[in-house]
Amino acid sequence: MVTHMKWLILAVCGLFAACEQGKEITVGGDAAKQVQRPHFEITSDEIFDAGSIPAYEGSHDEIYADIDRNLERHLANLQRWVRQPSISAQNNGITEMVGMLRDDLLAIGFAEAELVPTDGHPGVFAYYDAGAEKTLIVYMMYDVQPVNPEDWQVPPFAGELVEHDLGTVLMARGATNQKGPQRALLNALESIISVTGSLPVNLIVLAEGEEELGSPHFPQIIEKYKDRLMAADGVFFPFNSQNRSGDIKMILGVKGIIYMELEARGGPHGGPVNHEVHGSLKAFIDSPVWRLVQALASMTTPDGNTILIDGYYDKVQPPPDEDMPLINGMLASADEEMMMQALGIERWIDGETMREAQMDYLYNPTLNIDGIWAGYTGEATKTILPHVATAKVDSRLPPGLDPDEMMALIRTHLDKHGFSDITIRPMSGYPASQTSVDSELVQAAISVINKYGKPPSVEPRLGGSAPFYVFTDILKLPMVFTGIGYGKGAHGPNEIMLIYPKEGSKIAGLAEIEKGYVDILHALAGQ
Amino acid sequence: MVTHMKWLILAVCGLFAACEQGKEITVGGDAAKQVQRPHFEITSDEIFDAGSIPAYEGSHDEIYADIDRNLERHLANLQRWVRQPSISAQNNGITEMVGMLRDDLLAIGFAEAELVPTDGHPGVFAYYDAGAEKTLIVYMMYDVQPVNPEDWQVPPFAGELVEHDLGTVLMARGATNQKGPQRALLNALESIISVTGSLPVNLIVLAEGEEELGSPHFPQIIEKYKDRLMAADGVFFPFNSQNRSGDIKMILGVKGIIYMELEARGGPHGGPVNHEVHGSLKAFIDSPVWRLVQALASMTTPDGNTILIDGYYDKVQPPPDEDMPLINGMLASADEEMMMQALGIERWIDGETMREAQMDYLYNPTLNIDGIWAGYTGEATKTILPHVATAKVDSRLPPGLDPDEMMALIRTHLDKHGFSDITIRPMSGYPASQTSVDSELVQAAISVINKYGKPPSVEPRLGGSAPFYVFTDILKLPMVFTGIGYGKGAHGPNEIMLIYPKEGSKIAGLAEIEKGYVDILHALAGQ
Repeated sequence: MVTHMKWLILAVCGLFAACEQGKEITVGGDAAKQVQRPHFEITSDEIFDAGSIPAYEGSHDEIYADIDRNLERHLANLQRWVRQPSISAQNNGITEMVGMLRDDLLAIGFAEAELVPTDGHPGVFAYYDAGAEKTLIVYMMYDVQPVNPEDWQVPPFAGELVEHDLGTVLMARGATNQKGPQRALLNALESIISVTGSLPVNLIVLAEGEEELGSPHFPQIIEKYKDRLMAADGVFFPFNSQNRSGDIKMILGVKGIIYMELEARGGPHGGPVNHEVHGSLKAFIDSPVWRLVQALASMTTPDGNTILIDGYYDKVQPPPDEDMPLINGMLASADEEMMMQALGIERWIDGETMREAQMDYLYNPTLNIDGIWAGYTGEATKTILPHVATAKVDSRLPPGLDPDEMMALIRTHLDKHGFSDITIRPMSGYPASQTSVDSELVQAAISVINKYGKPPSVEPRLGGSAPFYVFTDILKLPMVFTGIGYGKGAHGPNEIMLIYPKEGSKIAGLAEIEKGYVDILHALAGQ
Repeated sequence: MVTHMKWLILAVCGLFAACEQGKEITVGGDAAKQVQRPHFEITSDEIFDAGSIPAYEGSHDEIYADIDRNLERHLANLQRWVRQPSISAQNNGITEMVGMLRDDLLAIGFAEAELVPTDGHPGVFAYYDAGAEKTLIVYMMYDVQPVNPEDWQVPPFAGELVEHDLGTVLMARGATNQKGPQRALLNALESIISVTGSLPVNLIVLAEGEEELGSPHFPQIIEKYKDRLMAADGVFFPFNSQNRSGDIKMILGVKGIIYMELEARGGPHGGPVNHEVHGSLKAFIDSPVWRLVQALASMTTPDGNTILIDGYYDKVQPPPDEDMPLINGMLASADEEMMMQALGIERWIDGETMREAQMDYLYNPTLNIDGIWAGYTGEATKTILPHVATAKVDSRLPPGLDPDEMMALIRTHLDKHGFSDITIRPMSGYPASQTSVDSELVQAAISVINKYGKPPSVEPRLGGSAPFYVFTDILKLPMVFTGIGYGKGAHGPNEIMLIYPKEGSKIAGLAEIEKGYVDILHALAGQ
């Protein structure tokens, strides 16, 4: 679920705050019900400045030199990985790719490196015992999205180098999401071991082959090694985080999500059971489409912006004090006009200020209709009363909102308002995930980013979702996904990772990326 | 728009009445607004019995004998017509078919028979001056629906005879909708003229080639000949009206209709303007899907069965006294269980009785969602906030409700409830049409049906729509669409018209159908 699409979005969205408490909204013209969406104040003027964290001062010149010396071979490793298709949705190349990953880990020097069977595609658990004080888990995904080869300018599994306005890029499915940065990290490990004989931290590699499917069986992998995993100090997900300007946003959390289909069908409560009927029969036949529309409408204010489900906001948590400086930092660097243009919008919900809108983004749950369909949707006119109507609905959950509880609140709401005929089909659900800016892992990552360029913008949370709760909630570990480097096109055609930036570029190429990983491991070890 | 699909529906639906006045409906859980849908009482115990109209007693044996003698040639005329494709939606064979119709009319003896250019496909106006007292307009449509040849058991334009459980049928596109019955009528004219040298009434044939497109240019044809048309005594649309049991429903009216698309898009009022955005951004971006859902929901009670648009029921007319015996007749022959089974429903709206439901069907307007679509409607999950959402909505209008006025009420409702961001795209609209059971034309048709079998069930109105207002409202003429004979599959594959029924069948074959038309013309002339 972590993709460069999301990355692009947060590159334009993650920036501000609000200051009103308890704004009241009147529902409907006739109904005089007062409903509140939580509004929060900023309680501090302090601005978080990542630049105040000293840049990492360690220098591992021999290792850097080994990287430079072996860069062509390192690049060949990336190419070898992207040339091996591993499309989880189509079970294409999974066995070959998971074997390649395991074999690479063994070759690098991991004493343990085993396939982990699951009810889906297998995972990998590998352990490198450096006899060190600290242990880091590296999360990896070895699967990729499907491809439409006809949309690509090069074959998506050829691993070709292509000239790009930013420099020479590797263009292939998986180049940046996530084979490129992951194999770059393994290259870094090779160079560290080659020069020093070991690693500065003990390393667990935990890989799954179903990230692009929503990680349905990742908890099985976690469960099997839970005790060993919980003894670690943090989780790192290597990620090409730079944008075209070289800037980095470091995001410390994600919202949870529930995703469901709501469906209305004919039945004892009325409506045609098995087939559509002629539209004129609406005169005496109940319409499942009207039922779905009414059920949905009962869940929000007429503007669609405030949730009317009893209890939905009850467990929303106010921003912790720790977030205030981060929010102020985001606001300080926000360009509202540019953001609205990138999003293609002319106002924020309810005509809010950017500060208010950003507080909604960070701290409030959403209720969103991803899709809706029923009946005739073609050209011109056709008069039918459809027997079934369906909507895809998702709700983003900030910390404190439990997926099962929220799903139950929706069911209760529908029943209470007379919509027990509406079926809910849950499709996925997991809670939010949060890591503290004060964790050693985050501080180490920031210090390394500061060494290589502009300090990152550090933001409390992404409005989107990823199942990182397995790390932060099940394993109780801090988790960070970052890294220098640039990529694009994660789920589309012509996916790239920048390898050799043009002269004077502010973006890291493969060599710098690997050196950054070298530094992060050492920084975490206090070396 | 008049099709055998509709025919099938009215074969199971057109039957009953209600007796409550002013039932009150409470809207919503919180809103205490009281809204009424009109309810009407049956004010008479009288039951209309079509059998009380004496069966037509005329016998035109020489003409019948001419039909029997020439039946093979008459059938060949039907085959010649169905072998000529005339798919209006694809402009396939239109020129050839309209020419064939005109040439056939000239050959039969119409002194006038001319093509009528329109902004779409041409029509035909033809006149046979019999020097008679009465003048009848025969409405014809020469176009047919598209075909999916792979779904057919014979090529759809081969005009083949096929053995069927009811007898020998002509299986082809247009066989029953409407080339078969129309050419059968022309065969009847040929035989009458051949035996008597003229016709018992003056005859105007008025044909269009866009019925399957919703008759968009038919008013242009009407307008050109309006004075001559208004001088006629009535309009006849030859129609295979029998069901498999040989029974006939004769319907005296149709509801009007407005059909529109409602659309919500991002704009200055909020929401993404040109493209979807990530679903997580619902936190601070307005959703056009929510807006459409809320706008639709504002228009009906939560059950979707009572319209909340101010004034929508104001001009609904109570049943005229003339309808009461017809309603009682419908109810007397109604089989509720069979009807519900055919419709695939387990209750009528609001848990009404069949009598109440039928009053809704006959006298109340509807508001129906024919289709709705937005965003992602594929498998599994995709999290987007769509920038556009669309619904197809139709409203059936009983007599007294003007299409333009009702469209304006919907616009006013949306604006008044804060939904001025919702666009309405009108797609078609015309008023209801009604003919009196007491008209000479209807009485003549009933008397002829009574001669050939069981008296018809006569019903005030179809809940569906056809643009017959051009005859009853613009030309101020009675209009009847009926005839003995059987067909099926009007808009689907394997369309048929029964030609040679099996021994002992209660359904008319081609010869009887033509004799029935001979009788209707004579009955209207009082001969």
